[in-house]
Amino acid sequence: MLNFVYDNSTKMVFGKNTEQEVGKLTKEAGTKVLLHYGSGSIKKYGLYDKIIKSLREENVDFVELGGVVPNPRLSLVNKGIELCRKENVDFILAVGGGSAIDSAKAIALGVNYDGDVWDFYSKGAQPQEVLPVGVVLTIPAAGSESSVSSVITNENGNFKRGFRSEVIRPKFAILNPEITYTLPNYQTSCGAVDMIGHVIERYFTNTTNVEITDRLSESVMTTVINNAPLALNDNTDYNSRAELMWAGALAHNGICGTGRVEDWASHAMEHELSGIYDIAHGAGLAIVYPAWMKYVYKHDLSRFALFANKVFGIEVNGDNLEETALKGIEKLEEFYRSINMPTRFSDANMTDEHIEEMATKASNNGEKIIGQFVKLNKEDIINIYKLAL
Amino acid sequence: MLNFVYDNSTKMVFGKNTEQEVGKLTKEAGTKVLLHYGSGSIKKYGLYDKIIKSLREENVDFVELGGVVPNPRLSLVNKGIELCRKENVDFILAVGGGSAIDSAKAIALGVNYDGDVWDFYSKGAQPQEVLPVGVVLTIPAAGSESSVSSVITNENGNFKRGFRSEVIRPKFAILNPEITYTLPNYQTSCGAVDMIGHVIERYFTNTTNVEITDRLSESVMTTVINNAPLALNDNTDYNSRAELMWAGALAHNGICGTGRVEDWASHAMEHELSGIYDIAHGAGLAIVYPAWMKYVYKHDLSRFALFANKVFGIEVNGDNLEETALKGIEKLEEFYRSINMPTRFSDANMTDEHIEEMATKASNNGEKIIGQFVKLNKEDIINIYKLAL
Repeated sequence: MLNFVYDNSTKMVFGKNTEQEVGKLTKEAGTKVLLHYGSGSIKKYGLYDKIIKSLREENVDFVELGGVVPNPRLSLVNKGIELCRKENVDFILAVGGGSAIDSAKAIALGVNYDGDVWDFYSKGAQPQEVLPVGVVLTIPAAGSESSVSSVITNENGNFKRGFRSEVIRPKFAILNPEITYTLPNYQTSCGAVDMIGHVIERYFTNTTNVEITDRLSESVMTTVINNAPLALNDNTDYNSRAELMWAGALAHNGICGTGRVEDWASHAMEHELSGIYDIAHGAGLAIVYPAWMKYVYKHDLSRFALFANKVFGIEVNGDNLEETALKGIEKLEEFYRSINMPTRFSDANMTDEHIEEMATKASNNGEKIIGQFVKLNKEDIINIYKLAL
Repeated sequence: MLNFVYDNSTKMVFGKNTEQEVGKLTKEAGTKVLLHYGSGSIKKYGLYDKIIKSLREENVDFVELGGVVPNPRLSLVNKGIELCRKENVDFILAVGGGSAIDSAKAIALGVNYDGDVWDFYSKGAQPQEVLPVGVVLTIPAAGSESSVSSVITNENGNFKRGFRSEVIRPKFAILNPEITYTLPNYQTSCGAVDMIGHVIERYFTNTTNVEITDRLSESVMTTVINNAPLALNDNTDYNSRAELMWAGALAHNGICGTGRVEDWASHAMEHELSGIYDIAHGAGLAIVYPAWMKYVYKHDLSRFALFANKVFGIEVNGDNLEETALKGIEKLEEFYRSINMPTRFSDANMTDEHIEEMATKASNNGEKIIGQFVKLNKEDIINIYKLAL
């Protein structure tokens, strides 16, 4: 176990009707608020009205910026920054899934920054004064509601890049599983893949003696695997929705990664997929993980056998760990397919056309190595994309 | 799953040499500090000197109050309150285990309170202005380093009572597993029992649909059960010490209890044991839990079978859940004995002499029902103590 600092300060307000508390929580956190959200779905299903009502009841002064799309765009972030400066906004309330939250975090980074906000994502610029962010979560998936991450797509070149810092961890997050009843099944499935992905990125590590975080990680993964089918089968099943929603937060709030080196190569490879094809992040991950696993599993057969055993209950064949490892990978791909996720390029109408381009971008023109569990260069990345064709 | 708020804001600084950061962390948190600790052990093993050095390097102004004993006393708390008022202390740094931390929390509650600090513990008084507390942990056990609890013993009548509130959750906690190398094995064992206890109090619940917290709870329990023997066998084994130290924090920081009703009857019964006999809390718990379990297991055979299966790997006998349940209880008692913990009154040289008195106190003269999983009156409490003779 490595040294670590764990400092998760997001106040999580979880359960039925909790969106009614948004006015009170926002009032405590800011005086002039930017309400930031995506498409019409929060209006269509009544959430928007509830939030406006709660903000007005507490006399919270706010301006609005909707229009966040999946793979949130830098252009809207810049629009948000301008608006916040003009209106003297001191708190950003994101209502939505990972895209709205990540966009809100980017705006929060940019308002008091003299340079281009893309500097944080492209050059690792260090933030000084950052606006606080609060969240009403509508899609359990990205874990952004209590994470230190934000991922933004720069339309100028279709670069999708992430930024991580404690300063953008949300102050509060409201999680009402009922709000997720209206999610299309496709999004519920993408969310499940994303949650498991956040754990996989931490689970596959070369750090030894990480027993408790291994067990926590397996807990989150099995919970998602058990509950996603239940939620898909009955959209209004509170119990499975609640398990998924809390699992999504725990998958990415850092608790599964304390004291170990994390990987994140597959996320980087997926970012190129959704950067170019604009497919959902979760769908992209369902394509990347099986291929990544098949490419790297020999690096640590024991860990892959552990994954197979603890997550899918596959008996460990001590004489043939490779067999156990491969069964685990197969089971994961099977799970993805069972929840109607693509697991190959062809399932998502993608070809090998952009593989070279995506590998070039992911490896920063061949100059960057990605991943920590197994370090991958541009050629490795190409091979992994090809395994996923 | 029930609605919940999870707001764990303690900054956890974990790993080798982290005690060297205490000066910097304290400097950020207060201007005049009370350094609060127990017996001579922190001086004997050099920790005291390291802390003083770090505080002086950062020019932190501090006063000292040592002398905290296990089952920390109200009289010392009152002394601390007086000292803090006299010296205008605005931050309390606890160096020690649960006793020093709980004592620090009590002082923090009392300094700006007009009445008797015991009001919080005896009458549920609500705190207003509370001093912030920081921690350098020396004994992984109580979980007090990131919990909302404090337990104090009032020598006037030997009442041991707890108080819980978010306002006493420490601001930071420094956890260096190396510091625990010098712990006597007895204390390491007591700590292991205490950690498992904090999870048991949450695990046995009537709340349904709590899958993810069940899995997290089992993760913490199995980690403790696997690693306590390794730490006892080799006091300087960093890996097992690290697993235990982090497990101890997770067992009681709230993450295992979100969305479910917790029990806490066994802790209440143990408090009377250690209130009267002054035995270590962990040792008292090792006596209470097997008896409590034998008394209540029929209330939910499935849950006890789950415990047996997930924590001790006992195969579930679907035709006879009672058999599985009883095997789990037996295994837990066996584990306690394997780490040299008493599991009966007689193991700790206690008789039935004070049973009536303890039950009277625990039930507040027969007026109070304790526990949530199974509600226990004075007679039940007497029966449980008797099962432990």
